Amino acid sequence: MNSSSAANPVLVVGSVALDSVETPFGKADEVLGGSGTFFSSSASHFAPVQLVGVVGDDYPVEKLAPLAERGVDLAGLEKVEGTSFRWRGRYRHDLNSAETLETHLGVFSHFRPNIPEQFRRAPFVFLANIDPRLQLQVLEQVEKPRLVACDTMNFWIESRRPELIELLKHVDLITLNDGEARQLTEHTNLVQAARWILDKGPKHVLIKKGEHGAFMFNRESVFFAPAYPLESVFDPTGAGDSFAGGFMGYLAATGDISERAMRRAVVVGSAMGSFAVEKFSNTRLLEITRADIDARVQEFRQLVAFDSELDA
Amino acid sequence: MNSSSAANPVLVVGSVALDSVETPFGKADEVLGGSGTFFSSSASHFAPVQLVGVVGDDYPVEKLAPLAERGVDLAGLEKVEGTSFRWRGRYRHDLNSAETLETHLGVFSHFRPNIPEQFRRAPFVFLANIDPRLQLQVLEQVEKPRLVACDTMNFWIESRRPELIELLKHVDLITLNDGEARQLTEHTNLVQAARWILDKGPKHVLIKKGEHGAFMFNRESVFFAPAYPLESVFDPTGAGDSFAGGFMGYLAATGDISERAMRRAVVVGSAMGSFAVEKFSNTRLLEITRADIDARVQEFRQLVAFDSELDA
Repeated sequence: MNSSSAANPVLVVGSVALDSVETPFGKADEVLGGSGTFFSSSASHFAPVQLVGVVGDDYPVEKLAPLAERGVDLAGLEKVEGTSFRWRGRYRHDLNSAETLETHLGVFSHFRPNIPEQFRRAPFVFLANIDPRLQLQVLEQVEKPRLVACDTMNFWIESRRPELIELLKHVDLITLNDGEARQLTEHTNLVQAARWILDKGPKHVLIKKGEHGAFMFNRESVFFAPAYPLESVFDPTGAGDSFAGGFMGYLAATGDISERAMRRAVVVGSAMGSFAVEKFSNTRLLEITRADIDARVQEFRQLVAFDSELDA
Repeated sequence: MNSSSAANPVLVVGSVALDSVETPFGKADEVLGGSGTFFSSSASHFAPVQLVGVVGDDYPVEKLAPLAERGVDLAGLEKVEGTSFRWRGRYRHDLNSAETLETHLGVFSHFRPNIPEQFRRAPFVFLANIDPRLQLQVLEQVEKPRLVACDTMNFWIESRRPELIELLKHVDLITLNDGEARQLTEHTNLVQAARWILDKGPKHVLIKKGEHGAFMFNRESVFFAPAYPLESVFDPTGAGDSFAGGFMGYLAATGDISERAMRRAVVVGSAMGSFAVEKFSNTRLLEITRADIDARVQEFRQLVAFDSELDA
């Protein structure tokens, strides 16, 4: 596999932000952040990426140059008058949940995704965590993608429930975390939650459990990939979007959306999420090579490998 | 593999209790409970079991007959004057943690394990969750076991820390849950927690994360087995001891304590834990057949199976 220009592109619509993060290990100010940024940094290891988003006129777009060099097409990144989306957060000792100290939406609050003509036939589409009404607007602009996946969050589950349920009819896959799956479906049990979601439309449900790994539920089967047991998690920001980037990027690179390929894609996604948290922002994602990724996927293999034959 | 009389016996020292449990799905009063009971019910599918424990003169020992029929030797179960160990607990909607409503130790509070002569050469020994001082007393009475494993809990980590640390020098493996591992080691990160414990003596550390699966750390490698994604968990009581019973029973049956065998044993343990929670008490553990167990182990295999080759 290589990310040749012949590979299928992945279109992602999401946020491009500036993050300021405090962890027990250090501080980073105004570094690249946002779902679109993490997704693109990760997916670009596998396939060409088409990024659609918006930044204010204060955004240090020169910092996106490394992404462009890696094959991320920024033609869909609008720059408009105003301030950029900024998020400031803190992780305490256990690193499990971010405490949001400040969210400044800026120009993102008026974001209306406008998909450039040359992006409208992307076969793989990822609708990162934005208002479900905007996610639906994106789908009106694209032409018969082979696979559409979306993410969401607690805020939209509460405030845009009907639109989110409508969106489920039009996507092939949804990624969400375990708490969000429970909130959306009102089922505590994840098997029941996944079935509820599958009944609403998607063929695949990817439930992320953070440090506890991820489940992929289809109508016929369930797959589980653990999170990589890292000795030190430096900054968890962006792990989920990096996971999604590895997952979609891998599928686009292979052009294969069979169950087999999807399982490998979940492991690739888990590997990318495990790299993302090793440094601030997308720093680690941009450093790693294909050999690093392959080695970590092999480590995942070792992590779960056992002989199924029990006869002594 | 079969649990022939030639198989290595497993000695377990633990509690034999009467449980009264409330879950969102029902209630059970004064049913068989205790770590020794769950462990024996599970391990007896694989190997002969030698149970050491104590009950009061009010204990319905006739209810243990099914265990004896399955090859559990009860010669080490003392019956003494007084009341039996009783536990009353409740699980709320999420089933994740038991709320203890009542603990009555009865004769268990004076328990001094006395290992019958014919049990002292058992090659596999499991020290279930009892006072570390008693666990050490058991080890003084047995002769060169091939594998000694112990369990523990938050209460002993607080109240018997020096004795527990001493015990670690004398066991090959410890099982504990993630919260207990963090409490014992004062490391939040489980990789660091496992290394701390390995440095104290055991060659293997099994960290159980309940519904999130289990890690087995050795000095050179780490293995992860997910929990089986059950659609309905009926009663979580005894899952950990059933896990341990499957793990030790499988190792005893094969007589193989290689890394390969230990990984299979973790999966067998996870399978047994998943059966235990399907009904109250040890009911489900006593119903299942070897074919049921083999089928579930195959389902575990399917749950984590993926091709490691990423080249498209």
